[in-house]
Amino acid sequence: MRFAGSFFDGASKVFRHRPTFFKLVVILAGASTGGLVAYADSKSGLNVQSSQGTSKRKVVVLGTGWAATSFLRNLDSSLYDVKVISPRNYFAFTPLLPSVTCGTVEARSVVEPIRRIIRKLDIVSFDIVKVAADLIFSFCSSRQKVGKIKFWEAECFKIDPTSKIIHCRSTAVTNPVGTDEFVVDYDYLVIAVGAQANTFNTPGVEDNCHFLKEVEDAQRIRSSVIDCFEKACLPDLDEEDRKKYLHFVIIGGGPTGVEFAAELHDFVTEDLSKLYPSVSGLVKISVIGAGEHLLTMFDERISKFAEEKFQRDGIELKTGFKVVKVSVNDFTMKAKSTDDISVPYGMAVWSAGIGTRPVILDFMKQIGQGGRRALATDEWLRVCGCDGVYALGDCATISQRKVMEDITEIFRVADKDNSGTLTMKEIQDVLEDICIRYPQVELYLKSKHVNSILELLKDSKGDVTKEAIQVDIEEFKKALAVVDSQVKTLPATAQVAAQQGDYLARCFNKIKDCEEHPEGPLRIREAGRHQFRPFLYVYCSSHAMFCMGGHKISLA
Amino acid sequence: MRFAGSFFDGASKVFRHRPTFFKLVVILAGASTGGLVAYADSKSGLNVQSSQGTSKRKVVVLGTGWAATSFLRNLDSSLYDVKVISPRNYFAFTPLLPSVTCGTVEARSVVEPIRRIIRKLDIVSFDIVKVAADLIFSFCSSRQKVGKIKFWEAECFKIDPTSKIIHCRSTAVTNPVGTDEFVVDYDYLVIAVGAQANTFNTPGVEDNCHFLKEVEDAQRIRSSVIDCFEKACLPDLDEEDRKKYLHFVIIGGGPTGVEFAAELHDFVTEDLSKLYPSVSGLVKISVIGAGEHLLTMFDERISKFAEEKFQRDGIELKTGFKVVKVSVNDFTMKAKSTDDISVPYGMAVWSAGIGTRPVILDFMKQIGQGGRRALATDEWLRVCGCDGVYALGDCATISQRKVMEDITEIFRVADKDNSGTLTMKEIQDVLEDICIRYPQVELYLKSKHVNSILELLKDSKGDVTKEAIQVDIEEFKKALAVVDSQVKTLPATAQVAAQQGDYLARCFNKIKDCEEHPEGPLRIREAGRHQFRPFLYVYCSSHAMFCMGGHKISLA
Repeated sequence: MRFAGSFFDGASKVFRHRPTFFKLVVILAGASTGGLVAYADSKSGLNVQSSQGTSKRKVVVLGTGWAATSFLRNLDSSLYDVKVISPRNYFAFTPLLPSVTCGTVEARSVVEPIRRIIRKLDIVSFDIVKVAADLIFSFCSSRQKVGKIKFWEAECFKIDPTSKIIHCRSTAVTNPVGTDEFVVDYDYLVIAVGAQANTFNTPGVEDNCHFLKEVEDAQRIRSSVIDCFEKACLPDLDEEDRKKYLHFVIIGGGPTGVEFAAELHDFVTEDLSKLYPSVSGLVKISVIGAGEHLLTMFDERISKFAEEKFQRDGIELKTGFKVVKVSVNDFTMKAKSTDDISVPYGMAVWSAGIGTRPVILDFMKQIGQGGRRALATDEWLRVCGCDGVYALGDCATISQRKVMEDITEIFRVADKDNSGTLTMKEIQDVLEDICIRYPQVELYLKSKHVNSILELLKDSKGDVTKEAIQVDIEEFKKALAVVDSQVKTLPATAQVAAQQGDYLARCFNKIKDCEEHPEGPLRIREAGRHQFRPFLYVYCSSHAMFCMGGHKISLA
Repeated sequence: MRFAGSFFDGASKVFRHRPTFFKLVVILAGASTGGLVAYADSKSGLNVQSSQGTSKRKVVVLGTGWAATSFLRNLDSSLYDVKVISPRNYFAFTPLLPSVTCGTVEARSVVEPIRRIIRKLDIVSFDIVKVAADLIFSFCSSRQKVGKIKFWEAECFKIDPTSKIIHCRSTAVTNPVGTDEFVVDYDYLVIAVGAQANTFNTPGVEDNCHFLKEVEDAQRIRSSVIDCFEKACLPDLDEEDRKKYLHFVIIGGGPTGVEFAAELHDFVTEDLSKLYPSVSGLVKISVIGAGEHLLTMFDERISKFAEEKFQRDGIELKTGFKVVKVSVNDFTMKAKSTDDISVPYGMAVWSAGIGTRPVILDFMKQIGQGGRRALATDEWLRVCGCDGVYALGDCATISQRKVMEDITEIFRVADKDNSGTLTMKEIQDVLEDICIRYPQVELYLKSKHVNSILELLKDSKGDVTKEAIQVDIEEFKKALAVVDSQVKTLPATAQVAAQQGDYLARCFNKIKDCEEHPEGPLRIREAGRHQFRPFLYVYCSSHAMFCMGGHKISLA
């Protein structure tokens, strides 16, 4: 799970103590310019069956990470019978994991028991009411009735979308009574299981490398670093052996690897050099990345800053190298223009990318999505080819509907008088819905430095006045031919997952209202509107901050 | 490692920051009344060979526990070439381990890296000098020259006392270069390896029970407690199954078991009941002890207090029961008058006593001490049957010389005029040395409520005036016939280990001085005096405090 920005640090502090504040912060952050949005036309929005009578719909949430906990914190749990299932009974603030590896932050400080989170949801309305009776009472009126959320520490190993059940197995390491397995049925399934480390089937990685995905990984890394130093201090070793033990290798040039390398460097320089003075001069830290640069997914300035800082700090960079094998004492890497190079090491951390969990692979096969890295959802986070199943966070990607796929229908909807041409007014009338439904349109306009689609069309028409413009279907297609080039996949970050969780919860909360008063954009293939607006990720590009070894750079 | 008293809590706090203060506290505490002391007559004190010229004697210390770190903190390392070898590279404040199990205290707070301890010894004199130049300078004058102490993280698996070498193996879990083994020679070997948990070969204990000896044990117990609660919350379980998961069993009625039971009770009552409200009422904590009471090694009032407190708290006590087998889901116990009783449990902690480490078992066989639980030393902590080897802490016991074994020689030494009888004056002249050498004498006098051995002899002589008393050898033997009944083995506690380490270090520091000016008691079989006083354990019986679940009871 990647993380960019100290914004989230501050947000999370208030997040823990005042969930309402957190929502305000997220909403305000969401109001800034730009955004990556995926839209698609589809038959229906969320399942329109709202709670009927006294029997509540069953919502089962898989996961306790950023997406799941964001969903839970924002869900009005009085409307549903909610169960949470995860092999991990706490939420982990993953951006701080590299800091846990070196003891900068204690593991205890970056985790919160899920039971405490769901318990707070039981009592938060009462707390607020106590604080300022009438005024806040009305604010909380929709949260007065709260339901008990259940948590079960178990792993879902199979999803059966036809029967709408999931198969689970307890993961607690304790002597079992009978079988550890059980089955849970659902009306709505929210899959937020995240991803696992991706070894790309590189031999030896599982056995010899550390990952950095969970708190336990961070703690193991910490022990291992100390072990390496202790081994390097033993008698009867020559200097080459000591250097081998003190060669720390990070495989992966993304944020996790880069942050860990920086933390390790500081730990060695400021702390371990005092405890191990005789060997600390032999330490070497290397970062191996397959890309041409570090942090290629970020702005070029961040990438450059990181590389220069590492060079000043004496951290060796090997960009453009792919690790092909890891053995007990050495690893083998290769660049395009080189042979295999074998390098001895003491400890290796593999943070080269995320992969799919087995339960998701199996599920994707069942629903005709085999061969993908992540579950495909529509822009309302509904799993394509499934009923009542949603997916968010690292385990899913949004399949954004393309303008050119729907261009004919868009034209038809806009052409109210069926004249076969569109006037500027006709286009204006549907423009807002188009932009909501296909956010790549706005991004395309920005990239062309025009304010409106109308200017785009005007340009193609030459000197005719705006009011006189009429475009036919071919001209319409031509003007928007490359707008879909702006479609981007959302990054697998904490911010995206948290926003998705929040969005989905708000949809669940207003199911009934939106049945009667749909709030979404115009449908393209049917009459009426979508029940909800699609998910809109708010990317705060003008406020992105990145911390590198204590330095902050602003991209204002 | 047992612990009694908050005295050590306070002492340890100042201990970490001002080692000199600590020594003062220990010395002052040692001045209180009573004490358990072991004396014996023997040919020589410490090896009288002090440092000669520029080549320093090699001192190898095995261990990083209470005894070893106390020894190191007090040793003038400038006099020796000191190496410390232990598989654990930190000192652990073991009395707080039960608090770590339930998160009352973080693991980080109860450990200190050994390298930091030995590094402080390198710089402590300079720190003090900076603070208050001349005055403290003279205080520190013997510490001005400090030597570098080496530490190697490895386990000694074989001691060869003939060749004066030890065989060691690295324990760091990292990919090895070549063999992990190495050999170290010594002039003086200080064995302070402690003890391990003793299963008494009870089947199933190793596989199914937790121990509580190390920090990792405490952390595992904590995870296991939470696992049990999570398992108990799963669906499709009947109440009996839930109760099984929530049955926490502590096997052992000593301080470790009792303190852990108390901590667990508080943890469940104050914290877990809020996170697991649906099942917290099903929790049961049982303490199984083979003795007739809990804490039989302490004062009866402490034992009674603990039992009553547990009864009030609903902790089940099973005293007089021995656990004969532990399976995955249940354990079997038996009392004298009952058959085997099988009881289901969720988690079991075994704290039923200490056992001997394999390296000590092997060593004892080599030196003719096979069949013992711990290494036998004399009262100067020298391993019997060995040259230049010392043992302290839980791995050793002092074989106290008995008065009746030496009664003839004692009489002879006291009978200066060789008259065949002893006057009161002749007895008075050697009395102090007798009491130093055989501390059971003072204890015996106390138990008889007499102030002096002279009163004891006077009683047996009837109405004769004190000055006229003369005793022959038979009367002397009769008066002291049962004095050795007061000989006690020291308990395996942190206080004993720490005092032993301190004592031994002071002996090592003044080897040269005591060659010229022996400070010990009169020798019984030879002329002159012992080089050093024997070890004297100071037991603060009038200030013993014991904390039970927040209550303190004073035995003033």
